[in-house]
Amino acid sequence: MIISDNRPIGVFDSGVGGLTVLKELQNLMPYENIIYFGDTARVPYGGKSAPVIQRYSQEILDFLLMQNVKMIVIACNTASALALNKLKTLTSLPVVGVIDPGVRAAVKAVKGQKIGVIGTKGTIASFAYQSRLERLCSKIKVIAQACPLLVPIVEENMHNTDLARLTIDTYLKDFKTLQVDTLILACTHYPLLKPLINEYFDKKITLVDSAQETAIEVKELLAARRLVADTEKIGTERFFVSDSPDIFREIAVKFLGRELAGECLHHSWTD
Amino acid sequence: MIISDNRPIGVFDSGVGGLTVLKELQNLMPYENIIYFGDTARVPYGGKSAPVIQRYSQEILDFLLMQNVKMIVIACNTASALALNKLKTLTSLPVVGVIDPGVRAAVKAVKGQKIGVIGTKGTIASFAYQSRLERLCSKIKVIAQACPLLVPIVEENMHNTDLARLTIDTYLKDFKTLQVDTLILACTHYPLLKPLINEYFDKKITLVDSAQETAIEVKELLAARRLVADTEKIGTERFFVSDSPDIFREIAVKFLGRELAGECLHHSWTD
Repeated sequence: MIISDNRPIGVFDSGVGGLTVLKELQNLMPYENIIYFGDTARVPYGGKSAPVIQRYSQEILDFLLMQNVKMIVIACNTASALALNKLKTLTSLPVVGVIDPGVRAAVKAVKGQKIGVIGTKGTIASFAYQSRLERLCSKIKVIAQACPLLVPIVEENMHNTDLARLTIDTYLKDFKTLQVDTLILACTHYPLLKPLINEYFDKKITLVDSAQETAIEVKELLAARRLVADTEKIGTERFFVSDSPDIFREIAVKFLGRELAGECLHHSWTD
Repeated sequence: MIISDNRPIGVFDSGVGGLTVLKELQNLMPYENIIYFGDTARVPYGGKSAPVIQRYSQEILDFLLMQNVKMIVIACNTASALALNKLKTLTSLPVVGVIDPGVRAAVKAVKGQKIGVIGTKGTIASFAYQSRLERLCSKIKVIAQACPLLVPIVEENMHNTDLARLTIDTYLKDFKTLQVDTLILACTHYPLLKPLINEYFDKKITLVDSAQETAIEVKELLAARRLVADTEKIGTERFFVSDSPDIFREIAVKFLGRELAGECLHHSWTD
């Protein structure tokens, strides 16, 4: 007899960017139920300090635990960098961040000895990617660059503008000069810039999309722990956000390429 | 006998941008004591909804009232647009936002009949500037533009880059085409871009800096209500922030052109 576990996977992000992770989870495991929390009243996390990110992440964890989830996916790079270890001490459920999957995929993909990482200021300053990469392979040289303008460019739909191209050039030219062959997109917004980044490097660089890698890791983990849902059914999705559900619904389309199918509810931190 | 009121002026902003208002207040009234609150754990306000901004503003008001302030200055355009009326109903102290001063100055300055406004998405979408300008002078045509990339450009010290120039061109070219002669800088970060914007318009446009205008309004109000501090003494400054005081101290230098003189303390919303 195959036992299935239909409790939802709890996914959270500072806002809407984590939907790129939700999308990959659904691509790979369409039968899993997912609850997504977007902390849109306090977004972005990228420039905030570790104690603040840890407190916010812990509050979201508590909320997701109340929803009877079977595991937690931190779909936000900044929260993964600054709060993953803390959350692991607070629950017996499996907690997966987006950093380790990206790191492992990059080490597998790299041809030379240089790996690039781009992310928010918080992610890059935390040194989370750099230290993990160097621990995994001491020969690897890591070049990291914070790119604070890329998130608003994605959110403003400016992908296809000269401004986006100049921003990419400003942030990424060192990777070109140094002939980096593998670049980790260490922010959930960046997968939407893949075409532009590929164009910039004439497709001569491997882009590691943490969202895809994280979905693979989650699938393996669920199988290993016998937590897989009933694969005969299509999973459901449900969303909670701390600011307006309407605004979230609207922006979500850009990240998912479709309307939200499940309900989207407001959760206020002071209620 | 001249009676002086040495209670501090309470100034608040979503983060560090409101320091441009503090600076102008001190330029004009060096004898006033000021308490500044920067909501750095929840910054930015620009993309968040009205109910969220109102709740945050009310929490800050309550905090400032506990500090025994004599008046409130909302140094944030988004909070002025979305929460000024609400706060006025919650206290008997005078509450001044940055919008009305900027609007009045723009109407005085305009030569033709077109006034431009640039600000965050929240400020522009609130229609606060547009409706006030049109109410004050029905002949005036208002052209408003949200410029979400300008705040990160200021915060990243990118003022003097080609990227900043291209961003300015992207957002402001319609003002040039339409021959707007007066432009309201409706975000506290924008005064730092004055040289660049002046260069873009060959100095042929009047830039209305809400920070300066607000300081003038505050000075008049304090005099009219007999709330002026002892003018023989140099005023003090004190800062409270909801994220790291160290990060705030560091970024503050860019906005003030000097180190913070007063202490900077952490205030956590969940303490």
